[in-house]
Amino acid sequence: MKNVALFGAGRIGRIHAANLAALPGITLKTVSDPLIANARELAAAHGAQATATIDEVFADASIDAVVIASPTTTHSDLITRAAQSRKHIFCEKPVDLSVERAQACEKAVADAGVACMIGFQRRFDPTFNEAKTRLARGDVGTPEMLVITSRDPGAPPVDYIKQSGGIFRDMLIHDFDVFRWILDDEAAWLSATGSCLTDPAIGQAGDIDSTAVTIRTKKGRLCQINTSRRAAYGYDQRFEVLGSKGLLACGNHRPTEVVQATSGGTSVDNPEHFFLQRYREAYRLEVTHFFEQIQSGGAFRTTVADGVAAQRLADAAAQSFESGQPVLF
Amino acid sequence: MKNVALFGAGRIGRIHAANLAALPGITLKTVSDPLIANARELAAAHGAQATATIDEVFADASIDAVVIASPTTTHSDLITRAAQSRKHIFCEKPVDLSVERAQACEKAVADAGVACMIGFQRRFDPTFNEAKTRLARGDVGTPEMLVITSRDPGAPPVDYIKQSGGIFRDMLIHDFDVFRWILDDEAAWLSATGSCLTDPAIGQAGDIDSTAVTIRTKKGRLCQINTSRRAAYGYDQRFEVLGSKGLLACGNHRPTEVVQATSGGTSVDNPEHFFLQRYREAYRLEVTHFFEQIQSGGAFRTTVADGVAAQRLADAAAQSFESGQPVLF
Amino acid sequence: MKNVALFGAGRIGRIHAANLAALPGITLKTVSDPLIANARELAAAHGAQATATIDEVFADASIDAVVIASPTTTHSDLITRAAQSRKHIFCEKPVDLSVERAQACEKAVADAGVACMIGFQRRFDPTFNEAKTRLARGDVGTPEMLVITSRDPGAPPVDYIKQSGGIFRDMLIHDFDVFRWILDDEAAWLSATGSCLTDPAIGQAGDIDSTAVTIRTKKGRLCQINTSRRAAYGYDQRFEVLGSKGLLACGNHRPTEVVQATSGGTSVDNPEHFFLQRYREAYRLEVTHFFEQIQSGGAFRTTVADGVAAQRLADAAAQSFESGQPVLF
Amino acid sequence: MKNVALFGAGRIGRIHAANLAALPGITLKTVSDPLIANARELAAAHGAQATATIDEVFADASIDAVVIASPTTTHSDLITRAAQSRKHIFCEKPVDLSVERAQACEKAVADAGVACMIGFQRRFDPTFNEAKTRLARGDVGTPEMLVITSRDPGAPPVDYIKQSGGIFRDMLIHDFDVFRWILDDEAAWLSATGSCLTDPAIGQAGDIDSTAVTIRTKKGRLCQINTSRRAAYGYDQRFEVLGSKGLLACGNHRPTEVVQATSGGTSVDNPEHFFLQRYREAYRLEVTHFFEQIQSGGAFRTTVADGVAAQRLADAAAQSFESGQPVLF
Repeated sequence: MKNVALFGAGRIGRIHAANLAALPGITLKTVSDPLIANARELAAAHGAQATATIDEVFADASIDAVVIASPTTTHSDLITRAAQSRKHIFCEKPVDLSVERAQACEKAVADAGVACMIGFQRRFDPTFNEAKTRLARGDVGTPEMLVITSRDPGAPPVDYIKQSGGIFRDMLIHDFDVFRWILDDEAAWLSATGSCLTDPAIGQAGDIDSTAVTIRTKKGRLCQINTSRRAAYGYDQRFEVLGSKGLLACGNHRPTEVVQATSGGTSVDNPEHFFLQRYREAYRLEVTHFFEQIQSGGAFRTTVADGVAAQRLADAAAQSFESGQPVLF
Repeated sequence: MKNVALFGAGRIGRIHAANLAALPGITLKTVSDPLIANARELAAAHGAQATATIDEVFADASIDAVVIASPTTTHSDLITRAAQSRKHIFCEKPVDLSVERAQACEKAVADAGVACMIGFQRRFDPTFNEAKTRLARGDVGTPEMLVITSRDPGAPPVDYIKQSGGIFRDMLIHDFDVFRWILDDEAAWLSATGSCLTDPAIGQAGDIDSTAVTIRTKKGRLCQINTSRRAAYGYDQRFEVLGSKGLLACGNHRPTEVVQATSGGTSVDNPEHFFLQRYREAYRLEVTHFFEQIQSGGAFRTTVADGVAAQRLADAAAQSFESGQPVLF
Repeated sequence: MKNVALFGAGRIGRIHAANLAALPGITLKTVSDPLIANARELAAAHGAQATATIDEVFADASIDAVVIASPTTTHSDLITRAAQSRKHIFCEKPVDLSVERAQACEKAVADAGVACMIGFQRRFDPTFNEAKTRLARGDVGTPEMLVITSRDPGAPPVDYIKQSGGIFRDMLIHDFDVFRWILDDEAAWLSATGSCLTDPAIGQAGDIDSTAVTIRTKKGRLCQINTSRRAAYGYDQRFEVLGSKGLLACGNHRPTEVVQATSGGTSVDNPEHFFLQRYREAYRLEVTHFFEQIQSGGAFRTTVADGVAAQRLADAAAQSFESGQPVLF
Repeated sequence: MKNVALFGAGRIGRIHAANLAALPGITLKTVSDPLIANARELAAAHGAQATATIDEVFADASIDAVVIASPTTTHSDLITRAAQSRKHIFCEKPVDLSVERAQACEKAVADAGVACMIGFQRRFDPTFNEAKTRLARGDVGTPEMLVITSRDPGAPPVDYIKQSGGIFRDMLIHDFDVFRWILDDEAAWLSATGSCLTDPAIGQAGDIDSTAVTIRTKKGRLCQINTSRRAAYGYDQRFEVLGSKGLLACGNHRPTEVVQATSGGTSVDNPEHFFLQRYREAYRLEVTHFFEQIQSGGAFRTTVADGVAAQRLADAAAQSFESGQPVLF
């Protein structure tokens, strides 16, 4: 039986808490959140204890692992502290908005010899993961081209956007990780462009809401990513990979399989509303994977090094967009 | 907090146990199964106690409700005993293969004043339930025709078939319930035919494996049901209802949304393998509904009367098939 | 080069005329219609001559073949006269609403030694025909069950319905032919029911608008047909056949492949509006087949005997509906 | 009645000849091809006369219009000659591989006052055209992003590739035209990359087979185009446009609507094999449009100016790929 502490009792923290509660052999012992009311409510729902501090967690020798679901700005400190306290670490993406600090985390974890997994949950989505499995098995031959469509149903508040690090670091970080995972290759050339098309307030905050990124890999493979902060029809999460022997296309998940036909047309459900719905199963599977690999000593599917690599691509995309020139690696 | 006892530690019992364990405010106290090893294993997984007898359950005044997932032949006795012990009852379908005994259960429950819900889980399937909601809301006008396709991936062992009551009572019981639920109407005329086409051993056991049933309702609406014990491509569970203003069609659920295109064709996943996969969410939702309605005093979506009504239709279908003549109601 | 005469310059006659005009080696010589203005207009469009009589056609020794697209009541006379005049015959379905007269046509054709093909155009629909080809090739094993969905976008005028022979002879005649073609088997037991649900005027005219027919074949295979005179979403023409090794399902054709997703849902085009659109290619292919087989001396895919057999099933369905009892063959 | 001459009796010439033959009011008078045997065969099939020269066509005052379906290298000469001879012109894409020569054609046509349409047939594809209509009508709001997927089933012979002008001019010319047509905007920034991934012989011929192009328009809209010379599953021709209120996605056309489900999966037909099949209807519609607009004096949907503009984009893409830098307009 392993004892776990959770940092962050917000939206994503509640998802992790429920998944932890259902895992055999795992006890959610402590929920830490500076908003102690939130911590208490979530802790009570799962028979855990609440604290407003982080020190209490690190001082508790009975805690084997921590799950970090607090704001991005706290990630690198918590990873470093957890590593120093010899606790295994599951941390939500991103490691840090700064590649340097992310690399420092990587070193801290390595020095301490603890296991640290980064929550790129898309790698655990049943559809995406099945595509990866088939691709790796050679079902469509050698990969040549990847097209990623990644659109949010609507933009977050402008206050969030201002401190988000920009669309490439905040939103495309997932797509850059998918790119590396699916093509199993690294960028050689990256070009990014974009516009502010959905809301002038985003532009006034110094960001854009629509982007188009192209990457050529070291092996000459091609990747195109198109993203938008707004899709009127819901959370649009698809990719397709062209291989020498065929195509694997990952479609959206829909709440139901009802087809309705009237004089106005034949329609199906729109995609799942947003990431909490679409990736519900992925969140469950990634935490399961975390504890399985700790138990078995196996490698994580998503490491701190993956987090650093995705961050580098986000930095390069931001640089390319600002300069109007491609970035070479 | 409510204490619950579970009868039956088999395949479906394990599903219910896991769902009970995840329900806030519910404690699975006892697992009862004559195969005590099974009872113990399942009880241990959820921190419950095990017993090989049923008397222990009924003698335990702390138990508020029972979930009956034991073989069909035990259902009516357990319902009657539970009613007499003033425990609320969730019972897997069917109530009983005999309409008379099912009616006796209905009376026992009414006399005792306990709540009793029958596990017609399809009414809780998200897709089917959404179709019902839209139909009730008038999205496609007044219903006129219902076509149900209901095919198992493969036949059960012949030993099971011999004591199953026949395909109409064993397999179509669900479809008869869907018919009543979706059309919100009762049969006036029913005609059934069928054949043994997939395995001669089924015919030698006195049953058939392929059926075609047609019902005309009291309001003149039409329903056709086609079923088979074998579908090479998986568990085929669909229905579509034609209304005066359009169509609602419920498609199969698939494990993933991967589309694969090669020189051999463009393919999607086959349907979920069988009922444990397809109705996983429905099993969770029906048990949630059971405790919510007990709590609120609201009516169940599926009552003992529904179980009796479906059984009557199954009897009529068997009679029609044997006589080659329609049955009038 | 073959000279052809066309009887009937109405809706379906115009379709045939255009297809004849595009066939290499075929000359549309004469268009015959008692409404001479219609005959003249259609003839002029294709460089043919017009006549209001039928005698002129049969007296013209240069005419090798006739295409009969005039009203149903004229079919048997025209077939008989054409056979006597030693002209090959393509005749729209049905041969005749009376099985006896249809059989008389069969004999007249055989006696004269001319070729006579009946226009069951669905056998030439690219989708349906591909399904038949795969079924015959064994791609899904041995057929066991056929489900036909056949719904018109809206009912014809009541005046038409009054003289149509009733829904089984007017509308299901096509479905009965599909049944025989796809299952390659004959009916042993047939049960039909139905209702008037879409328009009371249809009931007042002595007909119904919604039917459900079930057939068990001599080999024990099962077929269910559901039809309606009204489908708000368009012309719904589908069937699916379950085989021992899988399923073949024929979906509707749609005008375009545009998918539109808005906040209101994700939608595709409704099916092609009606038979002239859906079976446009089938009409072209059946006439091509007619002349190819005349040229090569090969057998037609749809013979007068097929027309007679479909008519018998329509009669049986009408009888079953009226008596409330199945018909045995 | 208009007399037409056709240049080129090859694959695409035969398509045009058949479509011309079916047009009321149009007579295909002459087929010109230096391979006189081909010219004769095609002319005979449609009752036309054949010639191996072009002079004969231009000297024939009875010819009102020419259809140019000869090799690309002949286009600009034929356009110029036809303009000088005051004949209306339908010319297959591209106008010319050189923007300068294409502009000279534009001037020659304007000076002569004849009508000249360029055969960008995709604008006439029923699916693509329906998407354009809905977009123009505002059904999904203002366009923001366009993603074009354009993949051939297999590469042409290397000898063809050597003289094709390269993938951007030979294959993407269509996609550049679709970009301009759908977004109704012009490029401000274009970046292209690519690789040789399918066949080293293509690389040895100095070309690539896989490309990824991104365009930002003057209005800030984004477009991504991904193309490959090889798609194992067939001719993949799709685009989707994201608007402020939704998405319009154009899917592939398939030969039939058969769905086959076996233990190996559930599959539909692969896309139509190649452009002759996919754009069969588009070829018919564009020639119809040509003569309708000549008759009415209306504007063509695709002009020489469109041909010049697409050629400029192809040049820019080639330049961007070679330099590794974006091109600004």
